[in-house]
Amino acid sequence: MLSKSQINSLKSLQHKKFRREQGFFLVEGSKSIVEFNNSPYEIDTVYYTTAFDSKVLNLSHKINSCEISVNDLEKVSSLKTPQDVIAKIKIPEWAALSEKDLVGQFSLVLDGVQDPGNLGTIIRIADWFGIRHIICSQDTVDAYNPKVVQASMGSLARVKVYDTDLTNFLQKFKLPVFGALLDGANIYHTDFGHEGLLILGNEGNGIRREVEALVSHAVTIPRIGKAESLNVGIATALFCSEITRNTKK
Amino acid sequence: MLSKSQINSLKSLQHKKFRREQGFFLVEGSKSIVEFNNSPYEIDTVYYTTAFDSKVLNLSHKINSCEISVNDLEKVSSLKTPQDVIAKIKIPEWAALSEKDLVGQFSLVLDGVQDPGNLGTIIRIADWFGIRHIICSQDTVDAYNPKVVQASMGSLARVKVYDTDLTNFLQKFKLPVFGALLDGANIYHTDFGHEGLLILGNEGNGIRREVEALVSHAVTIPRIGKAESLNVGIATALFCSEITRNTKK
Repeated sequence: MLSKSQINSLKSLQHKKFRREQGFFLVEGSKSIVEFNNSPYEIDTVYYTTAFDSKVLNLSHKINSCEISVNDLEKVSSLKTPQDVIAKIKIPEWAALSEKDLVGQFSLVLDGVQDPGNLGTIIRIADWFGIRHIICSQDTVDAYNPKVVQASMGSLARVKVYDTDLTNFLQKFKLPVFGALLDGANIYHTDFGHEGLLILGNEGNGIRREVEALVSHAVTIPRIGKAESLNVGIATALFCSEITRNTKK
Repeated sequence: MLSKSQINSLKSLQHKKFRREQGFFLVEGSKSIVEFNNSPYEIDTVYYTTAFDSKVLNLSHKINSCEISVNDLEKVSSLKTPQDVIAKIKIPEWAALSEKDLVGQFSLVLDGVQDPGNLGTIIRIADWFGIRHIICSQDTVDAYNPKVVQASMGSLARVKVYDTDLTNFLQKFKLPVFGALLDGANIYHTDFGHEGLLILGNEGNGIRREVEALVSHAVTIPRIGKAESLNVGIATALFCSEITRNTKK
């Protein structure tokens, strides 16, 4: 049984402001919680209903667990159809990225991606392609937003997401900077080499000028048909695929 | 001003049963309506509020147009935040596909795709890559579902979507049949040639057995990292990209 203030406190974690104040976020559903449990993330408390078999999670005894009513779980959940378990997890503070974290591999850089479903999808794609770091502009949607966590389908447990000032960040490292831009080189004729940063921009406006100025290789996905644009998640997947194709041959 | 029965009739078009009975579907927003207006689709009536400048659409005089109240438009719309114009468009009856419609190009085949957002995304991707035909199993979500239309972002006006019995369909043509399957050939080492059908399956269960039995080339997107799966829209995009890469070189 949760007190009214406990419910309000958990519910408030749907908002970035309160996540930052409290230092926690919520993960819903046992499948995703298992992924966070097998990761560097620190689970604080697991809340579950009687319907849930807590052995499924195989949690350490150090983690608090708390049976709650279906009614309380519905109040706390951000889902229309809540699952029977929710975990409160500590927001990690990753050490600042250094050159050695980035060399010999590709990392994604997101400039102003707004839609939480898109960011979640991009995290899942990064995880599929073995990309370990995503660096976001400060106006990109928060990675701990419940819709991002949901859409990432557990991949957030494995891909580290940073937010930072992109113009400072991009000037710090001597790596090729690929930017998904109009009128760039054809993605299918680009040699991505074996390391670099790949920037994808905002859904409507693309990469902002200050950031574009730091792109060393403008790259474009050629359009064969007539659709006006590709979704940023789809574009990310096509870039990751071409990079993989390049580096694994 | 719409009568109550007109409102109910338009609203009912959110459901497949009533779309099939009446032979119409709805498209919301001027951007998409313009695409349908420049296509073989036949617009029956355009409903708009005073806020809307109907000249934007540049419609033929043969098309009915009808100013309605914001309140009525909200009742008819399937969107949380309705736009200021909705068109009622005739569901076309495409002539059955023949060999000559399919040779020398690639077409998509969808086996049981359930999520309307996924189908809409797939239609948009097909349009981007110049794919003109999508053949769906009868249990795939209806292409005229409002969420599909919305997610296709006007591309439904250019890509023809058929629904049919897939096992019959696949036996009719002498074309290579590529299937997105586990344990198939690596997509990056596959020669797709210059024509064929590409089958993508249901979000959870993939391609069903009877359909899989008709696949001539099983193909797989290799996983580098750890995400359990890729969304079917993303998988479609990666296949279309590889096919494009292959056939345009």
